[in-house]
Amino acid sequence: MASDRKDMRRREFLTAIGRAVGGSAMLRTMAAMGIGTSLASCGSSSAAPAIAPIPPPPPPGMQSPRPGDWPPNVGIGKSVVILGGGIAGMTTALEMTRLGYACTILEATARAGGRNRTIRGGDVVNETDSSQVCMFDFDNDLYFNPGPARIPHHHEFLLGYCREFGVALETFTNDNRAALLHSTNSFGGQPQIARHVIADTRGNIARLLALAVNQNALDQELSAADKTNILNLLRSFGDLSGSFDYTGTSRAGFPGQEDTGSRQRGELVNPLQLQELLRDTFWQNRQDFAHGLDQQSTMLQPVGGMDRIGIAFEAQVVQNIIYEAQVTNIQNIAGGVQINYDRIGNPMSLNADYCICTIPATVLRSIANNFAASHRNAVDNFAYAAAGKIAFQSRRFWEQEHNIYGGISWTTQDITQIWYPNNGFGQANGVVVGAYLFGGPAGNNFANQALQTRIDTTVTQASVLHPEFGAEAIHGISVAWPKVPFQLGAWGVSDPGILLTPDGNIFFAGEHLSILRGWQEGAVLSAYHAIDLVVARDTP
Amino acid sequence: MASDRKDMRRREFLTAIGRAVGGSAMLRTMAAMGIGTSLASCGSSSAAPAIAPIPPPPPPGMQSPRPGDWPPNVGIGKSVVILGGGIAGMTTALEMTRLGYACTILEATARAGGRNRTIRGGDVVNETDSSQVCMFDFDNDLYFNPGPARIPHHHEFLLGYCREFGVALETFTNDNRAALLHSTNSFGGQPQIARHVIADTRGNIARLLALAVNQNALDQELSAADKTNILNLLRSFGDLSGSFDYTGTSRAGFPGQEDTGSRQRGELVNPLQLQELLRDTFWQNRQDFAHGLDQQSTMLQPVGGMDRIGIAFEAQVVQNIIYEAQVTNIQNIAGGVQINYDRIGNPMSLNADYCICTIPATVLRSIANNFAASHRNAVDNFAYAAAGKIAFQSRRFWEQEHNIYGGISWTTQDITQIWYPNNGFGQANGVVVGAYLFGGPAGNNFANQALQTRIDTTVTQASVLHPEFGAEAIHGISVAWPKVPFQLGAWGVSDPGILLTPDGNIFFAGEHLSILRGWQEGAVLSAYHAIDLVVARDTP
Repeated sequence: MASDRKDMRRREFLTAIGRAVGGSAMLRTMAAMGIGTSLASCGSSSAAPAIAPIPPPPPPGMQSPRPGDWPPNVGIGKSVVILGGGIAGMTTALEMTRLGYACTILEATARAGGRNRTIRGGDVVNETDSSQVCMFDFDNDLYFNPGPARIPHHHEFLLGYCREFGVALETFTNDNRAALLHSTNSFGGQPQIARHVIADTRGNIARLLALAVNQNALDQELSAADKTNILNLLRSFGDLSGSFDYTGTSRAGFPGQEDTGSRQRGELVNPLQLQELLRDTFWQNRQDFAHGLDQQSTMLQPVGGMDRIGIAFEAQVVQNIIYEAQVTNIQNIAGGVQINYDRIGNPMSLNADYCICTIPATVLRSIANNFAASHRNAVDNFAYAAAGKIAFQSRRFWEQEHNIYGGISWTTQDITQIWYPNNGFGQANGVVVGAYLFGGPAGNNFANQALQTRIDTTVTQASVLHPEFGAEAIHGISVAWPKVPFQLGAWGVSDPGILLTPDGNIFFAGEHLSILRGWQEGAVLSAYHAIDLVVARDTP
Repeated sequence: MASDRKDMRRREFLTAIGRAVGGSAMLRTMAAMGIGTSLASCGSSSAAPAIAPIPPPPPPGMQSPRPGDWPPNVGIGKSVVILGGGIAGMTTALEMTRLGYACTILEATARAGGRNRTIRGGDVVNETDSSQVCMFDFDNDLYFNPGPARIPHHHEFLLGYCREFGVALETFTNDNRAALLHSTNSFGGQPQIARHVIADTRGNIARLLALAVNQNALDQELSAADKTNILNLLRSFGDLSGSFDYTGTSRAGFPGQEDTGSRQRGELVNPLQLQELLRDTFWQNRQDFAHGLDQQSTMLQPVGGMDRIGIAFEAQVVQNIIYEAQVTNIQNIAGGVQINYDRIGNPMSLNADYCICTIPATVLRSIANNFAASHRNAVDNFAYAAAGKIAFQSRRFWEQEHNIYGGISWTTQDITQIWYPNNGFGQANGVVVGAYLFGGPAGNNFANQALQTRIDTTVTQASVLHPEFGAEAIHGISVAWPKVPFQLGAWGVSDPGILLTPDGNIFFAGEHLSILRGWQEGAVLSAYHAIDLVVARDTP
């Protein structure tokens, strides 16, 4: 039965690939497979428009491949060179080795993991025109994840590897009701506590809909029984009064709650004005963020830093990795591939049956190759998010004085987000991310700022939400991904298109070539996709 | 300035107490202080009606006392006997010792902590008519918190002690969108994934309100600009189409998501029928649970089990505790109190200037005393929740096959809730709470069941949500608080009333005498309240 199902899947997959012979027809097929279209569910979804595009449905039964789909030992006698030792490259090496392929990873730097990285005291951050040493105290809980920093609970393949490798996980919080929302355009520029905004939005929506129902304005939609039931629902939804009015709710907290917590009960805070909540789409979009499929609770993080995952992968494939091997030329040759690279100043060359290239398109476009024009064009034009983050060590004033344990505050200022640590609760000091810019002009501007300017700007803007930043946030250290060597961008934002199909014996992978761009799970899925194409070649 | 503020607070407090001379006038005063009225924010709030009563506002500036309010050394030369070594009693001993009082705790059992308790392999659970040995494997992550099991982020005093004592905390999840909601009355009795219910409820509410707005039914409430803005808000709120229709959303997940996670994208799941979501208040009330002030994210738990807090308190006051001291008589005597107790079969007696009694009313009413009739009557009639829990060791099928990491599933069956562990993610086995009954007839019935019946009933009902329970949930162990010696109930549900005032030299404390009944923070607040009354006596 299982093999029947597998054969069915394989047939469907090959049929789809068979249809995908190039140009717009292929692009449509890829879109139909749900590969080439974004649901605003990647790491950049938070910056995406509020209205996510709905992709066309895939053919029934069509799914991405998974390791169990491939025939055992299919790769015996075949060799693969994998370019890049990030999550996509290491997943490829791990799974292809299991299938019998002889795998070699060429990694440009002295460490594996790619954008999966954690910065601790003493670590060095190099950008193309600067270098920083992290001055955090040496402490297991004082770390900064400049790249991926959270894992949705349904990213099952990445989580499966965590389980397999024994990477301990803990909860990551997106939706902390004690965190702040701040728009320079609303409420006189005063930050608002999230619980207040959320409760009052629900209260107002419920009040207005109840009013319409009670005015019989929706009788064409609702039966008499429906009306009774929806009024009950709305009373609970918005915490309305018996007469379906909204005059505030304990859900919003109590006056002075921010620094007095549970002592006060009684007087409710005044509801925020609906007109203020409506005036700026910021208020609704920020509330809806944690409803997105890839940002819903439960979110997870590795205990001790995101690089626990990269290090665990590396332990699986370390014997396959050649470090400090900078690729200089990628060539399809008769019956295989030839890769030239520079290894600590020495020109080297490697031949293999296949190449799986996970090098970011931003970097790849500067490496000599003999790609087909279609692939070269796609690489040349692939857009990346100019995201960056900056972190500080600080006394945990957010916990001690504001009851904020983990989670995210939002602002319309360039810094966009403040992330509070989800680990080490109750300790004296923590690492707070003072800015997380997803890209766009602000992200590019951040990347182009001098290091001290990044710090100063962030402290100034973050101080609007937390005045403590000025005196207490120290050791600022930033990573602007457009300027990180061998990355030159945070995550891909173009449609994968032609790069989902091989160019001769060269196959492409990386988070940018997945349905989950910007996510580590996307890197894994892209690896599975590339492996699947290779396996299809080697399957009689 | 600080002492001015303190004097102001003290004057206001004494004025309030002065007004509180008994009977209904005092009850009104207490209500006005926000002490005697519940906001459905205690541990039982989840079972409370959806519409929380709003208490009258307290006098301006009126707040509960906190340790910094008391004069240093006020207690030197005075003695206090504290009855009960739970969180209320230990908080009292700790803070009064700091003020100079000579404190003695009489604890009926051989351990401190009271309902703050964690059960691990080898532990014994005694009820009045049964005894169980916990058969869980020996493992730091295999534990069961039968009493308090979560801490709201704004329960600042309890969290302050955790910080002071070095109790490590981690995130506890209430709102897991991968968990299940199940009503026997809806959807043919099929459990629904929380994300689906939440997304479709929001979608339908947004669609209906947008319809009313577009039909100009709310023009008396909304200006033209408001209408444009609220439509934008609703499109985001509900993930509506461009024409404000709701035909499903990626927020609800994708077909087959429960066990396939991130592989599928494209076809949306069909929205749940609005009529089904409306038919049973269960659907809305369960969604609203995590919006309540005391259940909002971020929730916390101690790393390693809730008893890490009790043990940390105990370390502070262990020199003050007499264990296995069962109180037999509580007497106001001239100028002080006399407490008789039985210590491992030996009748003993202790005299002190004051007694602070934290014994649960259910237990206290059977101990001889010379209380005033008013206090005795209040003790005799204080009602408690008949809550209980049962836990099992199991393979983590909920993680491995359903992407559920922590959180709670809800059912209309008697078991009410299933709690998944918020710790040890990715390990082979975990402890799952198969039932958490808050009280009522089902809670009493559970308490009166034979131990094996509790197990069998829970497995049967939990299997409706997770068929794996039948074969995989083992070592079931239950705690029905009405049957636990020296507790005889889960938490107080009556109004504190007269028990907030002293009876001679006897003062009362315990979670049941707080605004946060059922919470450990309530136990702390009740201790502060009792201390404040004693300090007022000793303040010239």
